[in-house]
Amino acid sequence: MSVTHLDNLDKIVSLSKARGFIFQSSDIYGGLGAVYDYGPLGAELKRNIQQEWWKSMTQLHDNIVGLDAAIFMHPRTWEASGHVEGFNDPMIDDKQSNKRYRADMLIEQHILKLREKGKKDKADEIQHLLDTTGTRKGICEDLYEIIMDEEIRAPESGAFDWTEVRQFNLMFKTHYGATSSGEDDAIYLRPETAQGIFVNYKNVMDTARVQVPFGIAQIGKAFRNEVVARQFVFRMREFEQMEMQYFVEPGTDQDEYEKWLEARLNWHKKMGVRESNLRTSPHPPDKLAHYARAAADIQYKYPIGWQEVEGIHNRTDFDLSRHQEYSGKKMEYYDQQKQERYIPYVIETSVGLDRTTLMILCDAYREEEVDGDTRTVLKMNPKLAPTKIGIFPLIKKDKLQNLAKKIEADLRDEFNVLYDESGSIGKRYRRQDEAGTPFCVTVDFDGVESDGEDTVTIRYRDDMTQDRIPAAKVGDFVRDKMKNWSPED
Amino acid sequence: MSVTHLDNLDKIVSLSKARGFIFQSSDIYGGLGAVYDYGPLGAELKRNIQQEWWKSMTQLHDNIVGLDAAIFMHPRTWEASGHVEGFNDPMIDDKQSNKRYRADMLIEQHILKLREKGKKDKADEIQHLLDTTGTRKGICEDLYEIIMDEEIRAPESGAFDWTEVRQFNLMFKTHYGATSSGEDDAIYLRPETAQGIFVNYKNVMDTARVQVPFGIAQIGKAFRNEVVARQFVFRMREFEQMEMQYFVEPGTDQDEYEKWLEARLNWHKKMGVRESNLRTSPHPPDKLAHYARAAADIQYKYPIGWQEVEGIHNRTDFDLSRHQEYSGKKMEYYDQQKQERYIPYVIETSVGLDRTTLMILCDAYREEEVDGDTRTVLKMNPKLAPTKIGIFPLIKKDKLQNLAKKIEADLRDEFNVLYDESGSIGKRYRRQDEAGTPFCVTVDFDGVESDGEDTVTIRYRDDMTQDRIPAAKVGDFVRDKMKNWSPED
Repeated sequence: MSVTHLDNLDKIVSLSKARGFIFQSSDIYGGLGAVYDYGPLGAELKRNIQQEWWKSMTQLHDNIVGLDAAIFMHPRTWEASGHVEGFNDPMIDDKQSNKRYRADMLIEQHILKLREKGKKDKADEIQHLLDTTGTRKGICEDLYEIIMDEEIRAPESGAFDWTEVRQFNLMFKTHYGATSSGEDDAIYLRPETAQGIFVNYKNVMDTARVQVPFGIAQIGKAFRNEVVARQFVFRMREFEQMEMQYFVEPGTDQDEYEKWLEARLNWHKKMGVRESNLRTSPHPPDKLAHYARAAADIQYKYPIGWQEVEGIHNRTDFDLSRHQEYSGKKMEYYDQQKQERYIPYVIETSVGLDRTTLMILCDAYREEEVDGDTRTVLKMNPKLAPTKIGIFPLIKKDKLQNLAKKIEADLRDEFNVLYDESGSIGKRYRRQDEAGTPFCVTVDFDGVESDGEDTVTIRYRDDMTQDRIPAAKVGDFVRDKMKNWSPED
Repeated sequence: MSVTHLDNLDKIVSLSKARGFIFQSSDIYGGLGAVYDYGPLGAELKRNIQQEWWKSMTQLHDNIVGLDAAIFMHPRTWEASGHVEGFNDPMIDDKQSNKRYRADMLIEQHILKLREKGKKDKADEIQHLLDTTGTRKGICEDLYEIIMDEEIRAPESGAFDWTEVRQFNLMFKTHYGATSSGEDDAIYLRPETAQGIFVNYKNVMDTARVQVPFGIAQIGKAFRNEVVARQFVFRMREFEQMEMQYFVEPGTDQDEYEKWLEARLNWHKKMGVRESNLRTSPHPPDKLAHYARAAADIQYKYPIGWQEVEGIHNRTDFDLSRHQEYSGKKMEYYDQQKQERYIPYVIETSVGLDRTTLMILCDAYREEEVDGDTRTVLKMNPKLAPTKIGIFPLIKKDKLQNLAKKIEADLRDEFNVLYDESGSIGKRYRRQDEAGTPFCVTVDFDGVESDGEDTVTIRYRDDMTQDRIPAAKVGDFVRDKMKNWSPED
């Protein structure tokens, strides 16, 4: 059989829209850039991923507890974390169109054009200037100088009429409460969920009776006013993170970092993502964030290339020390056995829920030639599939419908099931293939007209084979098959 | 036994903080008004409630699908919904302190003071003026006039130095994307989740193959810049809603409204809330919101009085008609059997997740006199309890620890369990009572030193009775007890 894997993102975008996994946000109003809504199938898929992550982190670890901090946080949090001062992109405005651009990206596009024109030396020269930005005057001034010297024009308007380059903070700001002044009550939408864990670290220590090493896990929305947000749900302005901060004794941090990197890679494999599409990619020492001693991406081979789906970071004691400094509260942990006080180091595992959802969709996608026709099928882990079992009477006859409805009623409390009696049986199978439904049960005359117990056929999404089984045993069969599922190549 | 139920909210606030259910947000920075963070126990409790609601709405109904729309929506949404124009409170600023107050509430407080002083006639007169606000000049002008005439002073500063009364929109506004202008890119944090469902109604119809009547269910955050936000998690600026919009044929709407009101009341009972603490309260016709044909609260008897935990509304075709008008997209449904086109009516069930969590905590709370001591216990539905089973070796001896650890390992995949070996057994029970843990398993020498199979004691949170059962049967026992639990009076 000829099988085609996913080769471009557009296919997932189309399927997502057609089947109700993911819609452009506010579609009826022309959409909202870089924001998406999860439809019926997508909402279930996302919840299932969330549920697996949460269970694997909290329920299955005796030393990791959950947390659900608010999106709104005290503004001092973002001073302590460094986001107010440092979470910026260098932006420049075209005065003609009032459009804003990232200055470094304008220059990168310019370099690309030079290369296309064969002007290699010139391109190399500008690339060198770009790479050494910040070493002459300042970051903004250096970028501005390149744009001026090269007479780079605005992509849309074609004008050469720029403002200065300014740092533009990526946090969304709003005003809070009921004072009438302007700036006092400014508040940000959190740009990462991690800080909600750090500001609650003391509360958790005081109430949950945890001892180092211990972890705090959280799932929640974060917001970044990305100027270049694109590639479907891969980079959005509103997105969801699943983060765990693991508090460890200094000195044990690199071991724990390695351990979590491996554990998290294994989790993705356990979700059914093919191993050949996963890799880890350590950040070189000179590219580490200011707070990190070590960092690595877990990358997935998306149709747009190898990209980060999760980051593992050794954040050292940077965050807790900063919050100690800014809040005046002691962030030390007292180790009773060693009779020592220290600020724990933090190993962070931070995975994008939207990126994971996209990865699951991409990895599951197949086009298969079947009888001269193409079937599109999502071969995802049955645990994650939005619908577990499709239940069909072969045709609309009472005898078949009644048994199918009975099976539906029996299974509904345990499984997400779907009853469907419209269209040919082949069409119904195909619809469930596209939804990733791992099992379809069909009630036919052979099954209800024999003398013994009623039987049905159960059809498997992945290889399209069928078994005839007792109608009363569908639940047992499905439970067993789900446990033993593994991804095809 | 003497039992005290919850009589004031402070007890829940204290217990929540002490045991890690709910913390003031950004505590280490002095907190953030009217925002709260859920700690380890609270996060689990909230997730369990969420899970029960989601399952009851989606999995258990063959005609209700899920959705997860973004918080950010196209600004036109809020013009169509009426929020830009109408979602206001009348506010007045004290020029001396720069503090802002709700004008109507200032007057209400003034009336209260008059009554306290015995000035009944005067109080009645002002109350009449307040009740007829908007009938003389305009709402703002009428309120301003009362404040001026009565010389009402600012509560904090004592000054009589007011601005005019102005309508103050309760939506949080931020700026989005990368245009440099000020107002073009204004965007709101959604003040309700319902509109995310309405703007996706067409997408869902086109992809999920639903037929009227059908529902769309969603759980998500909403934000309101309430000036008077208080009473713990009861009224917050950031809160979570669980909403279902049910699309029905006009003419069947009142029947469906009644049906859902009853179904939702039953859900709260099924969660284990005592019936005597629940009631429905219809809105009188002259108090209905502009979009509603009928509306009722499901109220819970909180320590602060009977208050809304959920609202059921017959929203008619108001929302879909408005979105049709503002988007230019047809919102009609084509009924194939009747060969008719119509815009469906909508029955909304909208329950606050935070209020439900608070209700569960309040309803579960007991103080009981036990042997001259007071035990505080949360007798909540075991399905909702953050931890299901506490597992204790009686003392720290290998033999006991080993069996306790084995039981822990056996149960961890299915249940949220907690192993605890520190402190007296009585103290360990009390800690789990306060956490609402329904079952505690203790491994003692009697259990491991007999010739036959190992046994343990299992102790029930609600009545503190104990059974001795085989160690291998703990899971079966717990499963059975959970199924058959019902709330005490």
